[in-house]
Amino acid sequence: MNASRLEDLFLMTLKDIYHGEKQIIKALPKMAKHAESKELKAALEHHLEETRGQVERLERVFKLMDKPARGEACEAIAGLIEEGEEVMEKAKDAAVCDAGMIAAGQAIEHYEIARYGTLSAWATQLGMIEAAKLLEQTLEQEKNADQKLNEIALNEVNRKAA
Amino acid sequence: MNASRLEDLFLMTLKDIYHGEKQIIKALPKMAKHAESKELKAALEHHLEETRGQVERLERVFKLMDKPARGEACEAIAGLIEEGEEVMEKAKDAAVCDAGMIAAGQAIEHYEIARYGTLSAWATQLGMIEAAKLLEQTLEQEKNADQKLNEIALNEVNRKAA
Repeated sequence: MNASRLEDLFLMTLKDIYHGEKQIIKALPKMAKHAESKELKAALEHHLEETRGQVERLERVFKLMDKPARGEACEAIAGLIEEGEEVMEKAKDAAVCDAGMIAAGQAIEHYEIARYGTLSAWATQLGMIEAAKLLEQTLEQEKNADQKLNEIALNEVNRKAA
Repeated sequence: MNASRLEDLFLMTLKDIYHGEKQIIKALPKMAKHAESKELKAALEHHLEETRGQVERLERVFKLMDKPARGEACEAIAGLIEEGEEVMEKAKDAAVCDAGMIAAGQAIEHYEIARYGTLSAWATQLGMIEAAKLLEQTLEQEKNADQKLNEIALNEVNRKAA
């Protein structure tokens, strides 16, 4: 059946981002601890809270599908998080490290924007209206988080790092 | 000197995306060959041409900095491309494969949107106006490519895959 096939792809991608969010929950406190800018530290801590809520939303989507919430290792998110860790190691100056962490954070946000955009479109196509709504809520949070990081870079961090 | 330090980060990220674009040039023909949708095939082939121009723009940025154009392996882009290849292997139905390739393509576009957004902001902060202009041109192309993939998914592919 064709419909179940897009559903398979949907489930595969859902597992991917579920694993990804859990990795992000591990990475964010480390980034927040490293942040010199108070604004950046606060934004990362706020996003950690948001991410916990996003994991819960994903668990609700699994439940709506009558599937166990299970993650699947995802090379892309591992690579993105690794880039953030590399910056923390390589940048010796605090403001430069902040600038690098913002860049890494925005790359992660954009990955999630792509994923939640796709997942909500697929959910809508599959008639999973409740799931689509949950995924769109997270999508909006990711867009706002990206925007917030952008503001911190432009208003404060890039100038200090230059 | 602080300025040179953000410049170091800029150069590091530039090498990253330079390597990334070259990997994308290798991946796109394979994706275009796999595409069932004529619209998708055309979009991927068009973006291959654009990407070649983007590589040239990056080489001009290296030249403006008096640095050799050199890439550096980037885990994130490798993981993103791998996700696209995984879809081509796993999806047996042609429309489902198209839907998955669009998703992978949009994740790659979003990675590039994040990267070029960061690089152009840093170039502006560093007073590298000509470089910023080149990077913004590519940023606009990546946003348009993402938008185009979105339209193909919503207008045609998702419906066929469901």
